[in-house]
Amino acid sequence: MGERPAISPTRAENYAEWYQRVIRAADLAENAPVRGCMTIKPWGYAIWELIQSALDRMIKRTGHRNAYFPLLIPKSFLEREAAHVAGFAKECAVVTHTRLEQRDGVLRAAAPLEEPLVIRPTSEVLIGEAFSRWVRSHRDLPLLINQWANVLRWELRPRLFLRTAEFLWQEGHTAHATREEAEAEALRMLEVYRVLAEDFLAMPVVCGRKSAHERFPGAVETYSIEALMQDGKALQAGTSHFLGQNFSRACSIRFTAADGRENFAWTTSWGVSTRLIGGLIMVHSDDNGLVLPPRVAPLQVVILPILRGDGEKVLAAAERLRERLEGLRPWGQELRVEVDGRDLRGGEKNWEYVKKGVPIRVEIGPRDVEADQVTYARRDREGKWSLPVEDFLKNAVALLEEVQEELWQRALQLRRRATAPIGSPDELRAFFSAGNGFARTYFCEDEAVEKEFRETLGVTTRCFPLAEEAEEGPCFAHPDRPGRPALWARAY
Amino acid sequence: MGERPAISPTRAENYAEWYQRVIRAADLAENAPVRGCMTIKPWGYAIWELIQSALDRMIKRTGHRNAYFPLLIPKSFLEREAAHVAGFAKECAVVTHTRLEQRDGVLRAAAPLEEPLVIRPTSEVLIGEAFSRWVRSHRDLPLLINQWANVLRWELRPRLFLRTAEFLWQEGHTAHATREEAEAEALRMLEVYRVLAEDFLAMPVVCGRKSAHERFPGAVETYSIEALMQDGKALQAGTSHFLGQNFSRACSIRFTAADGRENFAWTTSWGVSTRLIGGLIMVHSDDNGLVLPPRVAPLQVVILPILRGDGEKVLAAAERLRERLEGLRPWGQELRVEVDGRDLRGGEKNWEYVKKGVPIRVEIGPRDVEADQVTYARRDREGKWSLPVEDFLKNAVALLEEVQEELWQRALQLRRRATAPIGSPDELRAFFSAGNGFARTYFCEDEAVEKEFRETLGVTTRCFPLAEEAEEGPCFAHPDRPGRPALWARAY
Repeated sequence: MGERPAISPTRAENYAEWYQRVIRAADLAENAPVRGCMTIKPWGYAIWELIQSALDRMIKRTGHRNAYFPLLIPKSFLEREAAHVAGFAKECAVVTHTRLEQRDGVLRAAAPLEEPLVIRPTSEVLIGEAFSRWVRSHRDLPLLINQWANVLRWELRPRLFLRTAEFLWQEGHTAHATREEAEAEALRMLEVYRVLAEDFLAMPVVCGRKSAHERFPGAVETYSIEALMQDGKALQAGTSHFLGQNFSRACSIRFTAADGRENFAWTTSWGVSTRLIGGLIMVHSDDNGLVLPPRVAPLQVVILPILRGDGEKVLAAAERLRERLEGLRPWGQELRVEVDGRDLRGGEKNWEYVKKGVPIRVEIGPRDVEADQVTYARRDREGKWSLPVEDFLKNAVALLEEVQEELWQRALQLRRRATAPIGSPDELRAFFSAGNGFARTYFCEDEAVEKEFRETLGVTTRCFPLAEEAEEGPCFAHPDRPGRPALWARAY
Repeated sequence: MGERPAISPTRAENYAEWYQRVIRAADLAENAPVRGCMTIKPWGYAIWELIQSALDRMIKRTGHRNAYFPLLIPKSFLEREAAHVAGFAKECAVVTHTRLEQRDGVLRAAAPLEEPLVIRPTSEVLIGEAFSRWVRSHRDLPLLINQWANVLRWELRPRLFLRTAEFLWQEGHTAHATREEAEAEALRMLEVYRVLAEDFLAMPVVCGRKSAHERFPGAVETYSIEALMQDGKALQAGTSHFLGQNFSRACSIRFTAADGRENFAWTTSWGVSTRLIGGLIMVHSDDNGLVLPPRVAPLQVVILPILRGDGEKVLAAAERLRERLEGLRPWGQELRVEVDGRDLRGGEKNWEYVKKGVPIRVEIGPRDVEADQVTYARRDREGKWSLPVEDFLKNAVALLEEVQEELWQRALQLRRRATAPIGSPDELRAFFSAGNGFARTYFCEDEAVEKEFRETLGVTTRCFPLAEEAEEGPCFAHPDRPGRPALWARAY
């Protein structure tokens, strides 16, 4: 590509600012008039739709059904679970009135509500109340529900996609007859998230258990998928909670077992959000802008006719190529292809799609039509290649798969290079003074140690990787105590 | 079916109550703890997903792109368009605080906002503000955007699906360089809604123009699709607004034309909501519960194995049939089929699917397996039929199309029978004293006449049908004035 990268500052110069510029250059989203809220623009929303449709299929295949619960939660509901309300009260949007009225020439809130309502920050208590009515007998269990919705948490330091007051997500809520079933469900959905992140977004993640401090308010156990960004910071990309009987007691979700006894159900909840798009950007993009793995690219191939000379003929060849490409159906779906026939300078058009991250750009000019060939470029590499049309058609799907695989391998390598074994507190301090990454220690889960590093270094345990739970070694901070493998990082 | 209908009261006994009972019997939705809000349960939400996916395809095919705008609107934005704020201020949920805090042992709203925020009742002003930044030149037009979202209007007399405080919808918002283009867009999307209602929901609608009184607050012209329910009341099932330059002036959506002059854009907006499900219920359902046209049925065929005797064999035959049915792909999609292998009494299972409106129920018992046949029932007719398995497979798609067509024809007939030409105010009074239906008059659009009938009979003009706009006759109320065909009705 060009000598001068399209995004300024570059990643090396100012990563945080680079991130905002990539979003702007790809036209993904923008800040909204209400502080902390964002507008997701068509290119960004199309990515969300692809994530939604892939995940929705998996959620349904694992036996869950979608439903929709109200946006507003009575304050008294939120109070039912003590840890929960403590966790969310400080960032709740509160609805207190139900109309606006002119008074003294000014439009003011009127018709106060008897009980304030809260815009859902998450829906455990509201869905719990419904479950308490829907569940009567063990025959009603497991109850496996998912909802796609917007939620709102008043954020102090908002950042597009990563941390916004309002965001879009799905929240799964399930109730089970036994502890074992509920625990298995929480882990099953974590695995669904892993597949989504790795196979679809080409974003390697570590599946792990959270420490007590990092747990969801009200959960017995929180699991997460943790990804590593190019700047070495971690991103919690999805969480799955085993809630024990905390919420079923708070919301009175009871059932009659086969033996006639009444029990509280065991519940779970799990969610991923538009935050995934933030991760997608930070894992793959480069100094020329967004880079999209083909599976999550709203446009997988863009065809750019060079409209010099016999424009009609070139345009016709471009449309013919589009039709034939669409007819290919990799991954059970039509290939997503567009012809951009706008009368702009070729360079301008080309750079637009570079910045938008389209995996493959195809140029067709009069000479290509003559020679029955195309010239194509890959977003993940430099260079241009020419191929006879038939060969390009034969190779197109493999090419897209190659790009997907290439991005995956790069992200894996990035994580490998940025992960270091750490044997002592001093080593940990040295590691995070020098930069960022995943620090792997054995750790006894002493909360005081976590607190110290959180407060002095801004570093937290991201998770105890599930794949290594059987491993044991002397704790890096208290070598006399046994520890489990733990990953530490600065996190978004 | 049975002698005693499944839903009590029946339509004839108490239509309003019958409606609520159909919803409960089909497990579509329920009232939520917050007054006026509803929980859409899985069966109801699956219907919404089918409507969404059909409509989303059409919205995209007509060149629109999806985006997402924030839930919260600053009060000052709402005030920008005078008619708009007057129309919505009295039913706005107002957010005034951003946290809850313990004070005197009670959790109270804290951290008041400087400017109150309103939960969107509709998004013209918010999206208008974005458009004012996105549109610069005529090359940015037309701007064709759609959003799927929840909105909130504080309703005084809520009814599940028909009128709820929070509801789900899509709202399209477009900006154009000329008045003609914007008018054409409003009508194009009305036609999309007609196709959705008629071809997909089998619900006949009249496309028409609204009278000034019935217009959307801030619109120059409102168009709607109007359907007739089985009780003779009308349902406004979708609206499309030509907004002129009202909102572009209020929000400052300006563009530089090709000739270099600055103009205000011409805008439209259009929406349909979960209200469509209310219409679907009231148009097709009967005294045994919900009746679903196959295209919008979450389950098109349910297979009910009769698990007497050789249960394994019967279940295997049922699963084989499911697989083969799914392999049929009418309307470009897999047939939606399930086997209900639960160990319940046959009658109980059967009635569950009757009440849920599944178009075709197939029974397979040991004797059917022996004879390689199935016994099936149609939701739209009484009776049961037996067919060799191969013949049933050959006919299944045609059968579903027949059910779709049958429901469509019935609804058409219903509307035909319930529509009467009316020549004078006395005739109109007599018509609506005797019952309900569409009264067709020539009408000069005198607002005083509309007011009188609205206030004395609860009857309003539903629309001036577009198909008959060329027609003219003497106004039914002022015979000395020319009138256009107008439909009157009591409406939901």
